[in-house]
Amino acid sequence: MIPKTSGSWEGLTLLEQLKMEVLEANLQLPKHQLVTFTWGNASGIDRKQGYVVIKPSGVPYEKLKPEHLVVLDLDGNVVEGNCKPSSDTPTHLALYKAFPSIGGIVHTHSPWATIWAQAGRAIPPLGTTHADYFYGQIPCTRAMTAEEIQADYELETGRVIIETFKQINPGDVPGVLVCQHAPFSWGKDVKEAVYHAVVLEEVAKMAYHTFGLNPDIQPINHSLLDKHFLRKHGTNAYYGQGK
Amino acid sequence: MIPKTSGSWEGLTLLEQLKMEVLEANLQLPKHQLVTFTWGNASGIDRKQGYVVIKPSGVPYEKLKPEHLVVLDLDGNVVEGNCKPSSDTPTHLALYKAFPSIGGIVHTHSPWATIWAQAGRAIPPLGTTHADYFYGQIPCTRAMTAEEIQADYELETGRVIIETFKQINPGDVPGVLVCQHAPFSWGKDVKEAVYHAVVLEEVAKMAYHTFGLNPDIQPINHSLLDKHFLRKHGTNAYYGQGK
Amino acid sequence: MIPKTSGSWEGLTLLEQLKMEVLEANLQLPKHQLVTFTWGNASGIDRKQGYVVIKPSGVPYEKLKPEHLVVLDLDGNVVEGNCKPSSDTPTHLALYKAFPSIGGIVHTHSPWATIWAQAGRAIPPLGTTHADYFYGQIPCTRAMTAEEIQADYELETGRVIIETFKQINPGDVPGVLVCQHAPFSWGKDVKEAVYHAVVLEEVAKMAYHTFGLNPDIQPINHSLLDKHFLRKHGTNAYYGQGK
Amino acid sequence: MIPKTSGSWEGLTLLEQLKMEVLEANLQLPKHQLVTFTWGNASGIDRKQGYVVIKPSGVPYEKLKPEHLVVLDLDGNVVEGNCKPSSDTPTHLALYKAFPSIGGIVHTHSPWATIWAQAGRAIPPLGTTHADYFYGQIPCTRAMTAEEIQADYELETGRVIIETFKQINPGDVPGVLVCQHAPFSWGKDVKEAVYHAVVLEEVAKMAYHTFGLNPDIQPINHSLLDKHFLRKHGTNAYYGQGK
Repeated sequence: MIPKTSGSWEGLTLLEQLKMEVLEANLQLPKHQLVTFTWGNASGIDRKQGYVVIKPSGVPYEKLKPEHLVVLDLDGNVVEGNCKPSSDTPTHLALYKAFPSIGGIVHTHSPWATIWAQAGRAIPPLGTTHADYFYGQIPCTRAMTAEEIQADYELETGRVIIETFKQINPGDVPGVLVCQHAPFSWGKDVKEAVYHAVVLEEVAKMAYHTFGLNPDIQPINHSLLDKHFLRKHGTNAYYGQGK
Repeated sequence: MIPKTSGSWEGLTLLEQLKMEVLEANLQLPKHQLVTFTWGNASGIDRKQGYVVIKPSGVPYEKLKPEHLVVLDLDGNVVEGNCKPSSDTPTHLALYKAFPSIGGIVHTHSPWATIWAQAGRAIPPLGTTHADYFYGQIPCTRAMTAEEIQADYELETGRVIIETFKQINPGDVPGVLVCQHAPFSWGKDVKEAVYHAVVLEEVAKMAYHTFGLNPDIQPINHSLLDKHFLRKHGTNAYYGQGK
Repeated sequence: MIPKTSGSWEGLTLLEQLKMEVLEANLQLPKHQLVTFTWGNASGIDRKQGYVVIKPSGVPYEKLKPEHLVVLDLDGNVVEGNCKPSSDTPTHLALYKAFPSIGGIVHTHSPWATIWAQAGRAIPPLGTTHADYFYGQIPCTRAMTAEEIQADYELETGRVIIETFKQINPGDVPGVLVCQHAPFSWGKDVKEAVYHAVVLEEVAKMAYHTFGLNPDIQPINHSLLDKHFLRKHGTNAYYGQGK
Repeated sequence: MIPKTSGSWEGLTLLEQLKMEVLEANLQLPKHQLVTFTWGNASGIDRKQGYVVIKPSGVPYEKLKPEHLVVLDLDGNVVEGNCKPSSDTPTHLALYKAFPSIGGIVHTHSPWATIWAQAGRAIPPLGTTHADYFYGQIPCTRAMTAEEIQADYELETGRVIIETFKQINPGDVPGVLVCQHAPFSWGKDVKEAVYHAVVLEEVAKMAYHTFGLNPDIQPINHSLLDKHFLRKHGTNAYYGQGK
């Protein structure tokens, strides 16, 4: 009863479909006011072929066309496309390799999430909006060392995220704050990664001001976190119209 | 002289009219920037037949059509419609049963009201904007217990609201903050419930920053509260164009 | 070279022209995001005839038509129009009588100005944006007494503003915060009153956050206040394209 | 592959092209929500001829046409145009003379940057968004003296900016806060000056709130500043699609 995303993609190969999804996801970022100019990128992966589709570097969203998208393998070799891929590509590839359950990644400098990243603080779960999508605090990485920054910076950015998730399931917490930088989010596909980027921004804004009203606010307890996360996720979920 | 709401509903049954009102009210929520994605719902009641019309669960506003709306009786039995009703339906039904004077209910995660809910604080009346529509502070429920959360959560959400209004007339204070969650508002019909949701959000934003300027600010006195609430409500009201 | 306001009003009487100006000014209020719903009103005066044109009470802006506007004399007698005038009319009339140099008045509940009004604090001049239009602090009235509130409330609102301007030239400071209520602004005509309402809101927002960065911030000195106010106002003004 | 700015300017003289660029840059200011009313101006310089094109004083953006723009030489003599140039023209001219590498200048009262200017505080680099475009803190000038304000105010505004950059390369830090006033930004051309005005506003907003989360926050270290600034600027830059 609920229509699928607009546009008919019948007759397209899986890779062509993925490119359309990645294009659409990138265009959603400015629509949701998550990016200024070119400060963001979205990518998606075809796990079967091992191909990643990502935004080209520095191309304005309003001029982005399917042919600008870059297709790479997981080692970063360009398979298709004439543009240079996003400078953040090594971060995306590292996350795809480390987190096999994810199908899409979004990076933005959305202001409220970036504020927490700049402050180097994790966002604790303070309400059900957070609990509906993030099953615990949204962590902030440690600051990167001078060595990591000077070496293979974008790859090391991926590594410090992976290190942060050593004890966290990326399916439970689909986003992270990179210290002094900005957020990354992900999902089962690139559309869900965009969705989580929007949620992260909204949750960051509300958490900021909740501390403004009560600097000693404590995270919600585990019953409420369980209730809200699990009514939307997992086998006992009962939110939405089902399959 | 002032035209009624747009569109001609002549020839429709009362239930069909109610469905159109509930549809329109739901569509007003994103227009007033009260909801992100599907995080909100509006319902209305036909008190004569005892039928409640409510938004389906998880359907995006931009795809919402009259046939998606769900009609239930006050016991939660679906009378009409193929969609699953909003997961918050038991909260709505509990409020309709406890507050016989209300005809519509709105739930959102509008950011400023949600910030107060996350902080667990009532919004005191700090100015005439508040006093024009809320005849006293906008209360915040106590936090729900683990038992309430694990049991019939959405029904218990209704119960904790009703408990909060034991000493308050819901016609005088048409909204509430559910602790660690978000606001609910209501009105004589669903259109007024939306109106009160907008007021609540605006009042929450202004109260937040008034505390920012003066952390020791006190509520306005009762003369001003009386003057503003009663010039818009009750038999001596003199605001607007009358009947 | 610079075109006048759009639309040709040739052939209209002065009163008809004033009505068009007042209509246009009222419609500017939601466009500048100064009002939610019907929470605002603009009026203009024809000093020769002694007629005031004002918005009707409680009519939504999107439905406002020229024939809804109300024409009154300075004693509040309706000269033309079938609608009830704004409930704030006695405040407007009191200001027109006390401040002979003003030709238009605007009242809104614009959020940032209202926040200062709710906190009961004047806005000190903290930068040149303020100094360009307000030649000194934007004062806040004292709180009104229970007697004033219970008696002729809207007239007393005008009186407490006039009391606040005993030592201030309303041409130098074209706006005020009514304590626990919201701002009023004015100008040589209703268009300028709208302009000053926008400036007041912007200045209020910036002053709020300037205190956030430096709680001990002091007003700018008189040289800078003089320079900026007088380069836009008075006989030595040199901003703009002249007459 | 990436198209240049829209519109074909073939056949135009260099000065005509500069006028179109300056017009377009001025129109971008309200689009990026950097200006209210006429509170801003953009200019560009043709270094070969020594001509500066600038916005006229007090003309609303929505009415701005190419023929309103004013062409001056670096001594402020009007070469072309019937309008009075922006009252801030002497500031622009002083900067063009002192900073030979810049080709365009933008002045606005954009709120977040203005808040820092009103507080008299430099914006420290707190994250990579800042580091991507500003190679160090964005300085705030000292307050101007009464003598400077009363004398040739707009020229002295330029001088106090130049004094602030005695030890700073204006190519590394393409913007400044004028104490108690508002920001100026610049770039290799007027389009880049607008870009930097947007970045400055965004960075100012995020820095404000980062201090809100952590009042003792320290600037990022030099490795991160180097990495981000130099991946976008200079001979080893690797962001974007290259030439």
